[in-house]
Amino acid sequence: MTSSFHELWAELLPIGRSSASGGYRRYAWTAADADCRAWFQAQAESRGLTYELDRNGNQWAWHGDAEAGDAVVIGSHLDSVPDGGAFDGPLGVVSSFAALDELRRRGAEFTKPVAITNFGDEEGARFGLACVGSRLAAGQLTPEKAYELRDGDGISLPQAMEAAGYDPSAIGPDPERLARIGAFVELHVEQGRALDLSGDAVGIASAIWPHGRWRYDFHGEANHAGTTRLVDRRDPMLTYAETVLAAREQAQLTGALATFGKISVEPNGVNAIPSLVRGWLDSRAADQDTLDKVIEGIEAAAHEAANRAGIDLKVVRESFTPVVEFEHALRDELGRLLGGGIPVLGTGAGHDAGILSASVPTAMLFVRNPTGVSHSPAEYAAEDDCVAGVRALADVTEGLACA
Amino acid sequence: MTSSFHELWAELLPIGRSSASGGYRRYAWTAADADCRAWFQAQAESRGLTYELDRNGNQWAWHGDAEAGDAVVIGSHLDSVPDGGAFDGPLGVVSSFAALDELRRRGAEFTKPVAITNFGDEEGARFGLACVGSRLAAGQLTPEKAYELRDGDGISLPQAMEAAGYDPSAIGPDPERLARIGAFVELHVEQGRALDLSGDAVGIASAIWPHGRWRYDFHGEANHAGTTRLVDRRDPMLTYAETVLAAREQAQLTGALATFGKISVEPNGVNAIPSLVRGWLDSRAADQDTLDKVIEGIEAAAHEAANRAGIDLKVVRESFTPVVEFEHALRDELGRLLGGGIPVLGTGAGHDAGILSASVPTAMLFVRNPTGVSHSPAEYAAEDDCVAGVRALADVTEGLACA
Repeated sequence: MTSSFHELWAELLPIGRSSASGGYRRYAWTAADADCRAWFQAQAESRGLTYELDRNGNQWAWHGDAEAGDAVVIGSHLDSVPDGGAFDGPLGVVSSFAALDELRRRGAEFTKPVAITNFGDEEGARFGLACVGSRLAAGQLTPEKAYELRDGDGISLPQAMEAAGYDPSAIGPDPERLARIGAFVELHVEQGRALDLSGDAVGIASAIWPHGRWRYDFHGEANHAGTTRLVDRRDPMLTYAETVLAAREQAQLTGALATFGKISVEPNGVNAIPSLVRGWLDSRAADQDTLDKVIEGIEAAAHEAANRAGIDLKVVRESFTPVVEFEHALRDELGRLLGGGIPVLGTGAGHDAGILSASVPTAMLFVRNPTGVSHSPAEYAAEDDCVAGVRALADVTEGLACA
Repeated sequence: MTSSFHELWAELLPIGRSSASGGYRRYAWTAADADCRAWFQAQAESRGLTYELDRNGNQWAWHGDAEAGDAVVIGSHLDSVPDGGAFDGPLGVVSSFAALDELRRRGAEFTKPVAITNFGDEEGARFGLACVGSRLAAGQLTPEKAYELRDGDGISLPQAMEAAGYDPSAIGPDPERLARIGAFVELHVEQGRALDLSGDAVGIASAIWPHGRWRYDFHGEANHAGTTRLVDRRDPMLTYAETVLAAREQAQLTGALATFGKISVEPNGVNAIPSLVRGWLDSRAADQDTLDKVIEGIEAAAHEAANRAGIDLKVVRESFTPVVEFEHALRDELGRLLGGGIPVLGTGAGHDAGILSASVPTAMLFVRNPTGVSHSPAEYAAEDDCVAGVRALADVTEGLACA
């Protein structure tokens, strides 16, 4: 099995990799994405699986009768963030093919259909919205809203799909397809260090934390940096800086995460006191109460600093996703199938599994990432841990589909 | 005289004004710049002055024999920063024409030639370098370096000059022209509130403060904002924020100015801990010792914060201009001609007068700006103060050119 995982993994590695950064640039409906999709279809066909492309551009590889219902579906995504790592997404798809190979070697007798999936545009790197393929299928994104999405060059999602040879007029809810699914299990590289710290190769997801994005607009007064006395300034960069530090402090106090990673400044000139500093806050916590507390704490500190400095502050919530609790019965079943003692952990990151959990019983497996780094070429999983992940996914699939 | 200043001022007001921002966009070698230049030439010709365009695109309007030597030159510039105010530059040019009109009404008997100038590309808004016209003339910018300047669209300075109908091959040092000048006096709207606070309409410049730009590169580690524990982060935005606040604190302690007004972040994604935050520091002080002290204080605080957070910090000095002391004899002569009691003040802003002071005796007059705001549509001078400025410039010109 080791060689099988290793070979599969090695085939996918060169696609969409930037030699400049060492990171991946596999964005939806680009040439790199098409190469990943061709690889997926070739894997399906070489195994005698029934290949399907659904109306939303998600790929399916069926073992058994796709129409029979109560299917066990495993898979993840193949696209990447800008200069992302090799594991986020592809590890789940490659492990799914390797797990099916393993079950065939074991001579597993399937009583239910099994499908492997590649959900389209999970990262949202090109059009700014994550999980577009699963959101459309689950009815959580309307075609009308999807048609409005544009990339940085002004190309719309339907234009991009059409250029890649897909029919954008077909996108939309796909309840018939989701109704075939009895359970969806997504294996994913861990995006933190919980497994590294606990010393486990594999874990089970409990929940996806509630999370959101807030835009902070700090309005000050444009002025000459070389002539304006300090006392005459209304410099919004100072209030932004205080807010960045307050966010970190509030996150520490509450046990939440809070990050200012994106900024836009006007006029952004070296000798100009800014008229406007716009900062985006990303915040997540294990539960809604904690998230409310950290968000309120940061906003209060920002308003206090703004009032003190004569800065006009406007805070806008740009997006919000409530907590996703994975189905307890399926989660417990996974723990039982894996022999017990498997750590159960929450995650701050969104996933297709989080979207689908509203429609079908859904679970996730995590594989140890010793660096804890994610969305960067430094994300990593040791081959032994990847193999342990494949074995766990095979055990779970066998337990669910051969019962 | 009031009507004369008022009419002159009103003619220039609509040129290059953005109706969207209310600010001016008079960038070198654009259509708005050409309109300003046509206005200057028309003013010269309507007064029977000899119009000259020099090899570096600076405009001259001569009263008397340009070749006679020991000329009294007055003037400023007509270009603007992005969305700048109406006064920075144009007030000096308009006041110069109005002052000459006033001297003719007085029946002044000139013993020396007088010229009015419009120096090209003073603000550097388009090509990123200030005072290009005066720098070239004074040999402080070589043609080779000037040819390398490019605007945000990749258009080079010679391409822009050619497109505007000027000969870029002629640019370079112009010592013969500078040798004609006995004294250069630039009138400028004040860019701070010193005159407002002292209650004076007009002041005399003592010096241009030493000033420079430093680029701070904070290198951290890109990571997922939704999954990376606080303790596992190397987030350069936090160190940047600490440095912004330290800069303000050090400026307060030393009596200097220090501003972070420009920033660039990689990857600048809402859910990404940045790999790199690049901030630009503009700092100025009344003397070199104070500037050294504030720069060292900020750099030390930044390195301390960076070391504490595992951030790699690199600081690069991108530009530096030492103190410019205006000639004491000429400055004292201006004070005497204006009847004494005129405040003498330093400025943190660069000017063509600062460039020329290395080649010819140079002085500056400031007109009160009650808002203290500069490089913004909010910069302002009351008409009574503008008229007082014209009278002061006329008195100084008469005293120097009719002696």
